[in-house]
Amino acid sequence: MSHHYHPDPGKEVRLKDYITRFEGDFDKDEAAAEEAELEERLANLQERLYAESKQSLLVVLQAMDAGGKDGTIKHVFDAVNPQGVRITSFKVPTAEELVHDFLWRIHQHTPPKGYIGIFNRSHYEDVLVVRVNDLVSKSVWKARYDHINNFERLLVDSGTRILKFFLHISKDEQKERFQDRLDRPDKRWKFSMGDLPVREKWDDYMEAYEDVLTRCNTEYAPWYIIPADRKWYRNYIVTKVIVETLEAMNPQFPPAEEGLDKVVIPD
Amino acid sequence: MSHHYHPDPGKEVRLKDYITRFEGDFDKDEAAAEEAELEERLANLQERLYAESKQSLLVVLQAMDAGGKDGTIKHVFDAVNPQGVRITSFKVPTAEELVHDFLWRIHQHTPPKGYIGIFNRSHYEDVLVVRVNDLVSKSVWKARYDHINNFERLLVDSGTRILKFFLHISKDEQKERFQDRLDRPDKRWKFSMGDLPVREKWDDYMEAYEDVLTRCNTEYAPWYIIPADRKWYRNYIVTKVIVETLEAMNPQFPPAEEGLDKVVIPD
Repeated sequence: MSHHYHPDPGKEVRLKDYITRFEGDFDKDEAAAEEAELEERLANLQERLYAESKQSLLVVLQAMDAGGKDGTIKHVFDAVNPQGVRITSFKVPTAEELVHDFLWRIHQHTPPKGYIGIFNRSHYEDVLVVRVNDLVSKSVWKARYDHINNFERLLVDSGTRILKFFLHISKDEQKERFQDRLDRPDKRWKFSMGDLPVREKWDDYMEAYEDVLTRCNTEYAPWYIIPADRKWYRNYIVTKVIVETLEAMNPQFPPAEEGLDKVVIPD
Repeated sequence: MSHHYHPDPGKEVRLKDYITRFEGDFDKDEAAAEEAELEERLANLQERLYAESKQSLLVVLQAMDAGGKDGTIKHVFDAVNPQGVRITSFKVPTAEELVHDFLWRIHQHTPPKGYIGIFNRSHYEDVLVVRVNDLVSKSVWKARYDHINNFERLLVDSGTRILKFFLHISKDEQKERFQDRLDRPDKRWKFSMGDLPVREKWDDYMEAYEDVLTRCNTEYAPWYIIPADRKWYRNYIVTKVIVETLEAMNPQFPPAEEGLDKVVIPD
């Protein structure tokens, strides 16, 4: 089922061909039942990955505002030992970051062997917000797709698996979530007036995302387009893809040191 | 009850005066019942801390091998949104770290405003393992207690609360836990032959810890000596101290931006 949401590499992506709201014959209770078991597998796989310390997993999350990046991280990695997970939220670049190439700050946070790294936003912002707002010239952002593909290839060649999720919500769903933030006193701080001009450029962002999902959707670093209007379904699919990927990576507890059978621990 | 385990600042600490095994009139089931409620408070406090973004909390964990640092982190922060927590495990310093002062690498990982930082081992190793193994001269490590106190003062003055936990286990308990690691195929990788020479120097380590707990136990950055032979009790007390501290810090959701009452989200 999850492969369903990974477009074939090379295929031109049109987002209107991808649903935002799952309406199939599968409900929240069924997902919850399966998820308890998926989470147990995930916790076990993470422990093996950490113990083995030979491979790592990088999870990239991108979405429009209120698309559910925070909620996904909180939910999917709930059962995982936090010590094996490194989460990086990329904000507006600092002055120091801006005087380097756009991948400089990203590279510093790629997961070391044994770890799961999670990017809440990522280097893709440099071909999304940067492009939509003309922060660099077209020739500069156009060259970045190749830079990104090459960079991701470097990581993969060094033992990092990469999974990229676009949490795909409808414009109506965003409106509802913004309204919810305005209505709830404990959520208001999440709303910023600056979110509205971004919403106004919705179509420009969708176009920029389509280029990302077309040009940087490789065999070695696949994009998944997740129907994200329903949170339970989004969480379920993301968890499933991560568990299946870790299972394919098949991390193993390392062999014990030689001679441990004969060890006697002195008093 | 938790204040019980924080020696008065300035008092000379003798570890034999502190229990490793809790034997009081309070059992695992009672702790579990209270902990569910503590964890809920912790999750809520962390969300407020993150939203407020004006203060941070640094939790330092130190213990002998198998003392339960990993288990404490996994258990205590289970219910907390991983995105607001930054865990740093300090290993043997790298070549680059060694050509700086001993606090250089530590400083890079202090928690930013809004975050809970957790140190699995810390700058205290520089007056523990370094001292016991004569890695620097006595005059060098002796000067470090003041450097540490000054550094922690800097952090506290900048809005970081500091809590330091020594997970106090008995030498017998360590033996049992090492044996358990040897006996369980999924735990063997955690055992290293290098753990045994460290165990042999147990008394030297206790003496070094006593100096740490005497000289660096300040009003502004208190040490707690946690009876840690029983894991459930250790987890309960550490959670309790953290929750009480965050409650005293009293983080608040920030006020919403002006004029949000009049906002209408366009379609």
